[in-house]
Amino acid sequence: MSKGLFITLEGSEGAGKSTQIEVISNYLKGKGRKVICVREPGGTPIAEDIRALLKNPREDDSMCDTTELLLMYAARAQLVNSFIKPKLQEGFDIICDRHDLSTVAYQGGGRGMDMNHINAVRQIVLGNFRPDLTFLLDIDPEEGMKRARQRGKLDRFEQSKIDFFIRVRNTYIECAKEDPEHIVLIDGSLPLDKVSANVIACLEKLDV
Amino acid sequence: MSKGLFITLEGSEGAGKSTQIEVISNYLKGKGRKVICVREPGGTPIAEDIRALLKNPREDDSMCDTTELLLMYAARAQLVNSFIKPKLQEGFDIICDRHDLSTVAYQGGGRGMDMNHINAVRQIVLGNFRPDLTFLLDIDPEEGMKRARQRGKLDRFEQSKIDFFIRVRNTYIECAKEDPEHIVLIDGSLPLDKVSANVIACLEKLDV
Ligand SMILES: Nc1ncnc2c1ncn2[C@@H]1O[C@H](COP(=O)(O)OP(=O)(O)O)[C@@H](O)[C@H]1O
Ligand SMILES: Nc1ncnc2c1ncn2[C@@H]1O[C@H](COP(=O)(O)OP(=O)(O)O)[C@@H](O)[C@H]1O
Ligand SMILES: [Mg+2]
Ligand SMILES: [Mg+2]
Repeated sequence: MSKGLFITLEGSEGAGKSTQIEVISNYLKGKGRKVICVREPGGTPIAEDIRALLKNPREDDSMCDTTELLLMYAARAQLVNSFIKPKLQEGFDIICDRHDLSTVAYQGGGRGMDMNHINAVRQIVLGNFRPDLTFLLDIDPEEGMKRARQRGKLDRFEQSKIDFFIRVRNTYIECAKEDPEHIVLIDGSLPLDKVSANVIACLEKLDV
Repeated sequence: MSKGLFITLEGSEGAGKSTQIEVISNYLKGKGRKVICVREPGGTPIAEDIRALLKNPREDDSMCDTTELLLMYAARAQLVNSFIKPKLQEGFDIICDRHDLSTVAYQGGGRGMDMNHINAVRQIVLGNFRPDLTFLLDIDPEEGMKRARQRGKLDRFEQSKIDFFIRVRNTYIECAKEDPEHIVLIDGSLPLDKVSANVIACLEKLDV
């Protein structure tokens, strides 16, 4: 049985990840493939409980950076081991809304955590497991937050200051430059039909 | 201002940790010291939410070992950074019901996780931060579970098979043998007044 594709969507708030997941899913289904869409942090009952801990703003306790990092990877370990890997083996394509690159961008770039620590935890959790392809939707953070605010209440991350999101964006772009074979940088500020066309052009090269 | 003492209690279910914490706390208070008792996983609002995730049995998802390990350390990072370290600096003695040695015994010995992984995560979370003194209350697991069952419903760990607890116990004992300067092995199967006397004899050597 053929192994499925593992495709991840990255980018800051409002960049268009959820929108493009639909585009990718429809494209792959149109090719007769079996597709499952998931999100990080989350995607299993335990991982969704961890997501709530990470996302909900709270007044009674201020989460330290190390706790945030380990909760992200705890949720990722659960999703990858109990869901993504077995489903890929069954031949499903998995499209994931955020994955490991978010940790590099948000905890590494945004929070300024030691990249050696992040790399060490990744090694424990993922070993050599990597997406086949990552779409990085790039957008000016102010522009993205304007889009995100229209969705409703801001979560704990979305409440961060603009400097934080500028560091996140710059880290994302650096990663894409370092690994252009696996990370495709897409201009998320373009009109929706143009972004979708660019994403699909890239999928066509996969020749599935 | 003098830095407080960090004392931890270890041992399997029903060994007498909660009972001896009272004994230690009363002893130190009798010496005019300021004492705070906490437990792991837990001890802050975020860490208590993580504790619930770790402890509550659930039918909808089976927690993978890596997730369990990272949740333990996520809770520990939050407790140590946001509570224990500042309180020690303020001069409080902290007595903690379980700490890092539980991870070595349960996730390392019990679950059989790679000790290199545990050591790597410890280094990220704790650096060189260690208890001044650890009491390891040792008891035959069957005997301990008999005591624990009288407390009521068993949590996710307490529902493990007896082999698991035998590996936990053996790992605890090995650790005490390797580091007798910091880990005091106490026979928890003795009558309560004898256990308490042995614990107090050890505290008297601290000369506080
Ligand atoms: N290229 C685009 N141009 C304008 N608006 C867009 C574009 N892509 C998405 N949007 C809109 O912006 C908002 C955020 O998009 P979404 O896909 O939810 O972003 P993300 O999942 O990255 O946070 C949505 O209301 C969406 O309809
Ligand atoms: N030395 C002892 N002999 C007999 N029973 C004990 C002894 N120490 C504690 N107990 C009882 O055993 C039960 C478990 O003790 P506890 O201190 O709660 O263990 P732990 O916190 O290590 O799980 C309690 O009911 C306690 O009163
Ligand atoms: Mg989205
Ligand atoms: Mg207890």
